[in-house]
Amino acid sequence: MSETSWPKFKTYLYADPESDLMIDISRMIFPEDFFSRMAPQMEKIYAQIDLLEKGAIANLDENRRVGHYWLRNPELAPNPEISQAIQENLANIKAFAHQIHNGEIRNENGALFKNILLIGIGGSCLGPQFVSDALGTNEDRMQLFFIDNTDPEGMDQIFKRLESELDTTLCIVISKSGGTLETRNGMLEAKNVYQENNLDFSKHAISITQEDSKLDHVSQTEGWLKSFPMWDWVGGRTSVLSSVGLVGLALQGVEIESLLAGARRCDEKTREVAADHNPAALLALMWYKATEGKGGKQMVILPYKDRLVLFSKYLQQLLMESLGKEKDLEGRIVHQGLVVFGNKGSTDQHSYVQQLLEGPNNFFVTFIEVLKDRAKLSPILADNSTCGDYLQASLLGTRNALTLKGRESITITISEVTPFTIGVLIGLFERAVSIYALLVNINAYNQPAVEMGKMCTGEAITLKNLALDFLRENRGQKFTVEQLAQQLKCINAEETLFKLFVHLCANQDHSVQIQKGKSIFEDQYFIE
Amino acid sequence: MSETSWPKFKTYLYADPESDLMIDISRMIFPEDFFSRMAPQMEKIYAQIDLLEKGAIANLDENRRVGHYWLRNPELAPNPEISQAIQENLANIKAFAHQIHNGEIRNENGALFKNILLIGIGGSCLGPQFVSDALGTNEDRMQLFFIDNTDPEGMDQIFKRLESELDTTLCIVISKSGGTLETRNGMLEAKNVYQENNLDFSKHAISITQEDSKLDHVSQTEGWLKSFPMWDWVGGRTSVLSSVGLVGLALQGVEIESLLAGARRCDEKTREVAADHNPAALLALMWYKATEGKGGKQMVILPYKDRLVLFSKYLQQLLMESLGKEKDLEGRIVHQGLVVFGNKGSTDQHSYVQQLLEGPNNFFVTFIEVLKDRAKLSPILADNSTCGDYLQASLLGTRNALTLKGRESITITISEVTPFTIGVLIGLFERAVSIYALLVNINAYNQPAVEMGKMCTGEAITLKNLALDFLRENRGQKFTVEQLAQQLKCINAEETLFKLFVHLCANQDHSVQIQKGKSIFEDQYFIE
Repeated sequence: MSETSWPKFKTYLYADPESDLMIDISRMIFPEDFFSRMAPQMEKIYAQIDLLEKGAIANLDENRRVGHYWLRNPELAPNPEISQAIQENLANIKAFAHQIHNGEIRNENGALFKNILLIGIGGSCLGPQFVSDALGTNEDRMQLFFIDNTDPEGMDQIFKRLESELDTTLCIVISKSGGTLETRNGMLEAKNVYQENNLDFSKHAISITQEDSKLDHVSQTEGWLKSFPMWDWVGGRTSVLSSVGLVGLALQGVEIESLLAGARRCDEKTREVAADHNPAALLALMWYKATEGKGGKQMVILPYKDRLVLFSKYLQQLLMESLGKEKDLEGRIVHQGLVVFGNKGSTDQHSYVQQLLEGPNNFFVTFIEVLKDRAKLSPILADNSTCGDYLQASLLGTRNALTLKGRESITITISEVTPFTIGVLIGLFERAVSIYALLVNINAYNQPAVEMGKMCTGEAITLKNLALDFLRENRGQKFTVEQLAQQLKCINAEETLFKLFVHLCANQDHSVQIQKGKSIFEDQYFIE
Repeated sequence: MSETSWPKFKTYLYADPESDLMIDISRMIFPEDFFSRMAPQMEKIYAQIDLLEKGAIANLDENRRVGHYWLRNPELAPNPEISQAIQENLANIKAFAHQIHNGEIRNENGALFKNILLIGIGGSCLGPQFVSDALGTNEDRMQLFFIDNTDPEGMDQIFKRLESELDTTLCIVISKSGGTLETRNGMLEAKNVYQENNLDFSKHAISITQEDSKLDHVSQTEGWLKSFPMWDWVGGRTSVLSSVGLVGLALQGVEIESLLAGARRCDEKTREVAADHNPAALLALMWYKATEGKGGKQMVILPYKDRLVLFSKYLQQLLMESLGKEKDLEGRIVHQGLVVFGNKGSTDQHSYVQQLLEGPNNFFVTFIEVLKDRAKLSPILADNSTCGDYLQASLLGTRNALTLKGRESITITISEVTPFTIGVLIGLFERAVSIYALLVNINAYNQPAVEMGKMCTGEAITLKNLALDFLRENRGQKFTVEQLAQQLKCINAEETLFKLFVHLCANQDHSVQIQKGKSIFEDQYFIE
C-alpha cells in the first residue's frame, strides 16, 4: 500500500505533542548520512542564529536587527527597553480591543464599531489576512475587510459592501515605513468616502507605523483614535505577530496570547541543535537537499483544510521575498530563490495535480494535514465513511500516488486549526527560512529589488506628469507619442508614453483626448 | 526609459479593437525569423485544430470529441442535433433564470430564491468561481456561494453563513460524471443541513450532469427542481461556457450572451493562419520559445485588477491539467508541463516579485492590464495622479524592472472587465492551450493521472474499512498498527494505518479509542 518503508517513517517522524506538531520527511530522498554530513555546517548556523536572536545586526542593508523572535518571548530581547516595549504594546493592544468591544471607544455618533477595514499591502496585509481567515468564525467579535492594492475598482467594491455600515467601520492603516504608495492611496480614498458620507475619518482610523513616519505624522496631526508602533527590528514579512497582525486579530476576537504561545513553543523547539529534534532544521535541510541548494525545485503547499487556503500566499512572500536574492553574503552573483505556490486539497487534485503526477519532476509537495474534521460528529455519507474520512483519504491517496511516481513530499500534521497551532506554523516556517538562507549563504532580511520596482514606478509617474504638463502648456495641439517623446526629449520613451496615453484616454480624470490616426501608433493626443 | 525598442514593440503588437484585445510580446526573446521558421509546423497545427473543431475524436482515451468551441457558435457543431441541443439548452438556461428571478419558481414556502450554493470541484467549480468573482457587483440578482472540497469544517462555515437564508438558497450540484466523491459528499452534507432545518432539499436543488449518471438518477428520482445537461464532448476544464458556468452566472445576473460573444469573437481571430494575426498563436509560440517546448519556465500571471485575482487559479487548471502529461501522442515518455501561478498586481510587488527580479530566471510573466480604472471619475491623490494612475505605473514599473533584469514578459491589455472581455480571455487561453499542446505533441484533453489519484484514495478508504471491521469484530481487543497490518495481512500498510488511526482517534465518528504506548508507534487502538 504505502510505498515507503515503515522503518524509515518511524526513524524520521518528528513528533512533539506539546507543539501539536508532526513532520514526516520519509518521502523525501536523502542518504542515510545526510544529517550527520550536514551537522558541522548546521552547528555554525545555530551559532549565527543565536547571535541574531541576541540582537546582532542581521540586515546589513538597512543596518537593523532582526527581532521577530522577541515578539513572542520578550525576555529574549537584547535590552530591557525593547523587552518592555513589546510587553507594553501587547497590553495596549488587548486594552484597546477591550475598549472597542465593550464600547468604551465608540464612533462619533456613539455607536459600537462592528467592522474592521485593514488597509495595507505585502507584509502589512498577507499575515493578518491569512490568520484572520484561518481562525475566523461566524461568532467573531468584529468582521475584517481588506484593501491590499491600489486598484480603484477593487476599493469601490469594498466601500460598496461596507456602505451602510461605514459609520461603524474602524480603519486600520498599516505601513511600516509609512510611505507605501498603495497604502497611502487606500487611506486617501477611504478618507474621501468617509467625507462623502459626512463622517470624520480621524474618528474611525488607527495607524500602525514606525515613529516619525509620514503616516505617523498624519495620524498625530489629524488626531486619529489610536496609534500602535512598528519597530525597525521587525521586517514586514515576519511582522504578523507584531502590532501589524495582533491589533486586527485581537479586534476580530482571536486569542492572540495563544498565537504568541504557539510561536514561542515552536521557537524553543527550533533552537534544538540536533537536526532530527528541530522541526525547522528538518524542513530547511529537506528544502536544501531537494533543490540542491539552488532553488532547483518548486515547493507546492497543499493544506487539506479550507481554513488554510491562504497559507501558500503567506508563504510565497515569506519564502520568495526572503530567499529570492541575486547575491550571496559575499556579494557573488548566485540568483537564489525557491518558488512557492499552492492552494488546498483535495480541490487541487482536480486541477494541477495531474501535472504533478505526470509532468516535469521539478517540485516537492508540502502536505498540511489537520486531524480534527469539525466541531461536531459527522454523518456517515457512504462506504462507512464521513466527509472527513474522504478528505484524509484524498491526502493519503495523492501522497501515495506521488511516491509511486517518484515525486517527493513532506507531510506536516497538526491536530486542529487553533491560534496556538497557527502560531506554531508561523514560527516553524520563519525559522526554516532563517536556516535555509544561511545554508545557501544569503541575507534573508533585505529586499533590494523591491526598491528597484518602486523606482521604475516613480519613473512612469514622472513621465506621465511631464507629458500632461506639456499638453496643458500646449492646449489644443495634437501629438503622436513619437512627437511627444521628441518634444519631451525622452529617448526610448515612446512605448511607455504609448501605454500611458492609452490608459489616460480610457479614464477622463486628466481630460486627455484622442484623435484617431491611420494606425494606433499614429493616434494623436491633446488636452482642450 | 523603456528598455525594449519601439520598432520591435510596433512590429509585434497585436491589437484587435473588435475583441478589445492587445497583446505585446516585444519583451519576449525570439529571433526575427522565429514566426517564419515555425510557419510550416503551425500550418499542420491549424489543420489539426480545424479537424478537431469539425468533430474529430481528439480525446482518444475517452473516445470523445472536443467541442467547447461549438458552445459559443453552435453552427460549427458537426451535426444539427448537437447544434440544436446547444441552442435549446441556452434558451432553457435563460428561461430558468428568468423564472427564478421573477418568482415563477419559488421555494416550498412561496418565497423568492436569493442565494445560489454551487457544489462542484475542479472543472465544475473553478470556471464559475473565476467568472462570478470577476463580474460580481453589489447589484447582482443573486449571490453565489461555493462548496469546492470535502472539508467538513469548510462546509460548516458555508452552512453557518447561509443559516438564516437556507430556505431561499438554491443548490446547483455539478458533476459531469455524476460520481465525483467530493461533490457527492457536498450534496449529501447539504441535504442533511436542509433536513435539519425542516426543508425539502429536492425543492432547493438543480443538477448539471451527463444523462444517466448517478447524479442524474438522484436528481430524477428525488424530483429536483431542474436538470441541465453536460455533454461528453465538453471537458471539465473547458466547461465554463456550458451549463456548468452559464446556469449559475445567469442566475447571478451576468449577461451570458456577451460572455459567449466574447469567446466567439476570439475563436474567429484564433483561426487566423498568420501567427501575428492570431493572438492565441502568439501566446502559444511565446510559451514554446520561452520554455524550449519542455516546460522549462514557469508562467506567472499578474493581472493588475482585483477582479481578476482568480484568473491564475483558473489558468492553473486549464494549463497544468491539459499540458502536464507523461507521454506524447506517440506514447514516448516526455514529462511535459507548464507551471502556472500568480495572484495580482501591484499586491505581489510587495511579495514574491523580489524573487522574480533577483532570483533564478526560470519564469516569464504574463501581465494583464485593464485600462478602465473605475465607473466614476477618480480624485487626484498626490503628485497629479489618481489611484489608477499609480496602479498602471506599478505595472509599467515592474515590467521595466523585469526587462532591465533580463526577464521576459508578455502584456495582455483589455479595456474593461466585462462579460465580453472575460469571454475573450477564456477563448484566448483555451485556444493557446490547444495550439501549445500540438506544438509539443501531447494530448491536451485527457487527465490519466487524476484516475490514479482516485484509485489511491479508494485504497485508503478500503484499508480504513478493513481495519474498522476487524476492530468491530474484535471489540475491546487492542492492537498496534503493526499488529493490525499483520492481522489484516496488509503488507507495507503500517504507515497508512498509522495515519488513518491518528485521524480516527481525533474524530469520534467511528468510536475508535487509543491506549497510549511507550512511543506513538506503540499506541494501541480498539473499539469498545
